[in-house]
Amino acid sequence: MHNSHGPVVPTNGALRPLTTARLDPGGLLGQWQERNRAATLPHCIEQLHAHGNLDNLRRVTGDTGGAAASYAGYWFADTDVYKTLEAALWHGSEREFVADTVELLAKVQDPDGYLVSYFQMAANRDRQWAELPSSHEMYCAGHLIQAAVAAARAASGDPGAQPLVEVARRFADLLVRRFGAGGEDAVDGHPEIETALVELFRVTGHRPYLDLAARLVDLRGRGLLGPESRFGQRAYYQDHTPVRDAAEATGHVVRQVYLLAGAVDVAVETGDAELLAAAERLWGSALASKTYITGGQGSRHRDEAFGDAYELPPDRAYAETCAAIGGFHLAWRLLLATGRSRYADEMERLLYNGIAASTALGGTAFFYSNPLQLRTGHDGSDEDAPGARLPWYKCACCPPNLARLMASLHAYAATGDSGGLQLQLYAQGSFAAAGRAVDVATQYPWDGTVTVTVTESTAEPWTLALRIPAWCADARVSDPDAVIAGGYARIRRAWKAGDRVELTLAMPPRLVAAHPRVDAVRGAAALARGPVVYCLEQAGLPGELAGVVFEDLTLDASAPIGVVRDHPAAPVALAALVQVADAADEALYRPLGAAPPARTSATVHAVPYHLWANREPGPMRVWIPVVPPPR
Amino acid sequence: MHNSHGPVVPTNGALRPLTTARLDPGGLLGQWQERNRAATLPHCIEQLHAHGNLDNLRRVTGDTGGAAASYAGYWFADTDVYKTLEAALWHGSEREFVADTVELLAKVQDPDGYLVSYFQMAANRDRQWAELPSSHEMYCAGHLIQAAVAAARAASGDPGAQPLVEVARRFADLLVRRFGAGGEDAVDGHPEIETALVELFRVTGHRPYLDLAARLVDLRGRGLLGPESRFGQRAYYQDHTPVRDAAEATGHVVRQVYLLAGAVDVAVETGDAELLAAAERLWGSALASKTYITGGQGSRHRDEAFGDAYELPPDRAYAETCAAIGGFHLAWRLLLATGRSRYADEMERLLYNGIAASTALGGTAFFYSNPLQLRTGHDGSDEDAPGARLPWYKCACCPPNLARLMASLHAYAATGDSGGLQLQLYAQGSFAAAGRAVDVATQYPWDGTVTVTVTESTAEPWTLALRIPAWCADARVSDPDAVIAGGYARIRRAWKAGDRVELTLAMPPRLVAAHPRVDAVRGAAALARGPVVYCLEQAGLPGELAGVVFEDLTLDASAPIGVVRDHPAAPVALAALVQVADAADEALYRPLGAAPPARTSATVHAVPYHLWANREPGPMRVWIPVVPPPR
Repeated sequence: MHNSHGPVVPTNGALRPLTTARLDPGGLLGQWQERNRAATLPHCIEQLHAHGNLDNLRRVTGDTGGAAASYAGYWFADTDVYKTLEAALWHGSEREFVADTVELLAKVQDPDGYLVSYFQMAANRDRQWAELPSSHEMYCAGHLIQAAVAAARAASGDPGAQPLVEVARRFADLLVRRFGAGGEDAVDGHPEIETALVELFRVTGHRPYLDLAARLVDLRGRGLLGPESRFGQRAYYQDHTPVRDAAEATGHVVRQVYLLAGAVDVAVETGDAELLAAAERLWGSALASKTYITGGQGSRHRDEAFGDAYELPPDRAYAETCAAIGGFHLAWRLLLATGRSRYADEMERLLYNGIAASTALGGTAFFYSNPLQLRTGHDGSDEDAPGARLPWYKCACCPPNLARLMASLHAYAATGDSGGLQLQLYAQGSFAAAGRAVDVATQYPWDGTVTVTVTESTAEPWTLALRIPAWCADARVSDPDAVIAGGYARIRRAWKAGDRVELTLAMPPRLVAAHPRVDAVRGAAALARGPVVYCLEQAGLPGELAGVVFEDLTLDASAPIGVVRDHPAAPVALAALVQVADAADEALYRPLGAAPPARTSATVHAVPYHLWANREPGPMRVWIPVVPPPR
Repeated sequence: MHNSHGPVVPTNGALRPLTTARLDPGGLLGQWQERNRAATLPHCIEQLHAHGNLDNLRRVTGDTGGAAASYAGYWFADTDVYKTLEAALWHGSEREFVADTVELLAKVQDPDGYLVSYFQMAANRDRQWAELPSSHEMYCAGHLIQAAVAAARAASGDPGAQPLVEVARRFADLLVRRFGAGGEDAVDGHPEIETALVELFRVTGHRPYLDLAARLVDLRGRGLLGPESRFGQRAYYQDHTPVRDAAEATGHVVRQVYLLAGAVDVAVETGDAELLAAAERLWGSALASKTYITGGQGSRHRDEAFGDAYELPPDRAYAETCAAIGGFHLAWRLLLATGRSRYADEMERLLYNGIAASTALGGTAFFYSNPLQLRTGHDGSDEDAPGARLPWYKCACCPPNLARLMASLHAYAATGDSGGLQLQLYAQGSFAAAGRAVDVATQYPWDGTVTVTVTESTAEPWTLALRIPAWCADARVSDPDAVIAGGYARIRRAWKAGDRVELTLAMPPRLVAAHPRVDAVRGAAALARGPVVYCLEQAGLPGELAGVVFEDLTLDASAPIGVVRDHPAAPVALAALVQVADAADEALYRPLGAAPPARTSATVHAVPYHLWANREPGPMRVWIPVVPPPR
C-alpha cells in the first residue's frame, strides 16, 4: 500500500489528494504501474548508463572513470536522471540506483548550490545563467526538486534518498538568492521550475520558494528572454504576453502546459483567483479548438507547437508525449483547485489515449510524437515521426517522464474533501483518506461496470462521488438515492464497511465527428468506446483486403459497429464495415464529383489507438473517411 | 528585343530555346517582367546594401568602410548578391551595380579561385571545405556561375560584366581541381552547383565542368555527407540514395528539384537516358502525389520538405517560393529534353499560381512559404507563415530568385526545333529562331484567345505548334488543317509573313476536387479558370457576411459559378454561392451526423490565388468545403 499524497499536495482548493491509494495489478492502471516498475524503470536506468547521462555528472567530480571525455547529449540531460530518480522513489524500488545517484548529485553540486553538469564543465562555467532562453538551467533545477519532493513524500523510510532533499533545497536557495525579489529579473526559456518550487514550499513550508515561483510566473511575457528569441517568436518561450493577459494557448506546447500548471499552483497557494481563471481560460481555449481526440496537443512539428484554432492534422500531429503528461498534470491541478469533473474527464482521455499510446506493450519502447495517422509509404526514419516506438531518443525527455507518471499513477485516481471521497479515474484498487476507505473492482475501461465497496468509514455521514464521464450518455447507479449532477453521481449517507455501490456506464461504440472547422478530418469519423479512442491498422486487415491501399478504405457509417472481446490484438476490438474504392489510377486533381465507386467491402477490426504499432509496422488511422459523407 | 538563349541552352534534346524572344508589357507576363525591372530588382539591390551582403564581401578585401565588423546573415548570403546580379544582367539594367559588384568580386576572390565571403573571414578560413553538409560553398559557387552565364549570354555588350565570367571560371576550376576525377569524393549539402557547371560547360565548351557535374550527381546517395546528418535524415541533404536508384521525390524540396535539374542537364549532355528517366520518374512521383494544386511542393515546414504521398495540408503548406522556381527550372529542362507538353503545363501552373503568389502587386514584398489557407486568428508573427508578404527575409533566398526568373522570363515562352516553332506559354510578345518568327497577341490567362501572326518565315514548310493545356477540354484552332494530338495543335505549311492563326481555349470556371487520398481537403473543392487557381478571402466578402467566421462558409456546388470581369481586386473574379452555418457553439468532437444547418447564403467573389493578401490581411482559402459533400 502506497502511503503518500503523491506529487501534488496543495494546501488549498476544492479537493485534496488522498493519503492512501493503491492500484491493483488486476486492473489496467495497476498493470501499467507494475509494468513501469518491472520494465520501464530498469530500462530507463540502463539507458541513462548507456547514453552517458550519469557520466556527465561523474565528470564534474573528476571521476571520469572509463567514460568518454566529452559531454553526452543535450545540455539538459541531467533531467532524464532526475525523472528516473523520481520514478524509482515513487515506486520505492531500485534503491541502489537511488542511493548511488543521490550520493553522486551531492558530490557534483557546487558549494553555492549550482547543479547543471553541462554548465559545470570547465569550458562552460562562464556561460552559467548567461543563456537563459535556451540553457534550461532552471528547468534542470525543477526536475531535481520534483525528485526531491518524491524523496520527501514517498520514500520516508529510504535513508539513501533523504540527502536529495537538501541538494534540491541548496539549488532552490541559490535560485531564491539570485532571482528572488530584489534579485535579477529573469525567467528560464523552458518553464518547469514554477511547479517544482511551489511543491518544495508545500514540502518544507519555506515561503521564499513560493514567492519565487509567483515572481517567475509574473515575469513572463515581459520580453526578458529578448526580442529576438528563436525564430523571432516569443511564444515559443512563453514570453509573448503575461499569463494573466493571454487570450489563448499558443507556442511550444510543453512549455505552455508546464507554465500553466505552475500558474495554478501559485494561484492556489496565494489565493490568486485571477491567475487561476487565466489558467482555466488558456487551457480551455486549447481544449476547445487545439486538442486532438486523443487529448494530445501540438499540431506542428516545427517548434513542437500548438497550431491555429482548428488546425488539427492527424498525420502531422506532433502530440508530444511530454505534452500529454504535462496536460495530465495540469488537469489534475485544475481538478483539485476547482472540483470540476471536466478536468478529470480530460485526465481520463489523456491517460487512455494520448499518454498510453506512447508506450509499447512491453514497456521498453516509446513514441515521442503521437500522430493519429500514418500513411502508406511513410518514411519512418525521422525520430520525430517514426513508424514504430523507439527504445530511446536523442532528446529523451518522454520515456523517463512516462516512468515518473506511471510510478505515481495511484495518486491520481481519487480525491477527498471534508465531505467525502470522489472517484475520478475508475481503477481496480483501494483508496482512502480521513478514516474513509473504499475498494474498487472494475475492468474499466474495457467494461463500464464499477463496483465500490466501503472498507472503512467514520460514524458521520459522508458523500461518495462517482464521476460520470462526459462521453457517457447512460450512467446508472445501483443506489436509488444517487443524485447525478455536475458530472458526478453523489450518494450521501452514513456508510459502514461492506456497503457496496455499483455504477454502470453504458459504453456502446460511438462514431465521432469533429467540428466542421477542423478541415483536416472533414468527411471522416473516429471510432470510440468509453474513454478509449480506436484506430484502424493495416496490420489488422483481413486477408480479403490484401493488396488494397490502406488509404482507399472508407467506413460505412450506416452499418452497426460490433464489439469483439478478447481479440488477439486488444481486450476489446470494434468490428466495422468498410468499403474499398480503387483509386490508384485517379489523377491528383480532377473535376468535382467523379470519385471512384466502391469495389468491394469487408468487415475490419479497429483496435484501441493506444495499442497501435504493437503488431507489424504499417499504416494506421484514427479518422476514417465515411460513406455516405456526413453533412 | 532580348537577344539571348536564356539561362538554359542544351546542346541536345527534343527542343531548343529560341534565339530571340520578347515579352510585351501589354500582356501579363510582360507586365511582370517590367515590374521586376522597375521595382523588384532595385528593391533587391537596396536590400543587399541594407542587410550587409555587399559589406560581407567588402570586408574580405579589408575595405570595411563604415560597415559593421561582423558578418551579417547566413553564411551563404553571397548567393543573394549573385542572384540579383543575374537578374540585372538578364535585364541589361542597373549597370552601375553590375560593374561595381563584378569589380568587387574579382577583388574578393582568393588567388586559388575560392570565393565565399563567410569562409574567407580570418576566423573561418580553416573551416573551408570542412563542413560540406551545411557550408553551402558549392551552392555559392553555383549561383556565382549562373550569374556569369547571364553575363556571357545576355550582356555581351556590357563590358563591366565580362570579368565575371573569368571569376566564375576560376572558382569552377578550383572545384575541378579539388573535387574532379581523382580528387576528393565529396558533395555539397545543398545541390545547385550541378546545373551551374553544366551551363558553364555550355558557355565555354570546357568539358571538365560537365565531367565534374556528372561526378557530383553520381556521388550523391553514398553517405559522403555522413551518417549523422541533420535530424539523422540523409534525405534532407538528398544523400539518402543515388539519384538513379531513388523511387520517389523526398526530403528538402529545393534541394531535390535543384538536384534533379542538374541530373537532367548532365543526362542531356552525356546522352545518359537512364539518368534522364530517373529525373522524370522522381519528379513524376512528386507531381502524382506530392504537389499542391498551385504547383507548389513542400508539405512540411519542418525540414522544408516533401511529405508522404498525398500529405498535402493547405494550411501548413510550405510550398516555398524557391521550390516553385526550382520546379519551373526543372520542368523547362524536361520540356527541352523530351518535348512533352506536360512539362510546359507544369511550368504554366507554377507560373500563374505557386510562383506568382509570392510577389505583392507592387513587386517589393514577397512570400517565402505559400500556404493555400490562412485561418481566422492565425498568428502571422512567424516569418515562415506570415499573414502578409514581407519586404525581405533573414534567409532571403526567394526574392532575388524571383528577380532572376522574371528577368529571364521571355526565354521560357516558346521553343524551336528543326521542324518549327512551339508556343509553350501564351504571352503577348515576339518569338523567333532560325528565320521563323511570330508575334503573339493575347490577354491570356484572363482570356483564352491567342492570335499568332507570322512575321518572318523561311521558304520551306514548317510546323507551328500551339500547346493545348491539359486543363482545357475545348480547344479550337482557326486553321482547319490543325492536328491536335499529344498536347499540341500542330499546323504544318509553308508560312509567309502576315499569316495568322487564332487559338481559342475555352476556360469556363471549374470546380476541382483532389484525389480521395488527400485527406486534408476531403469534402472541399477549389475554383479554377484556365491555368489560374482561385481563392476566397475574408477581405472580399460582401457586407451581409460581416461578422461571419470565415471557416463557416461552404460552397454550394449545385449553383453555377459566374465570371466577373474587371473586378476591383482582379482582372477576372469568380462569383460563387456560399452557405453559412453558425458553428460557434459546436463542440470540438460530437456524434457523427449532427452538423449545424445553414443559416444564410450569399454570393461571394473568389480572386486568383496569386493575388491574395493584396487587400487587407485576413483569412484565405483555396479549398472550400462543399455542400452537398461530394462522394
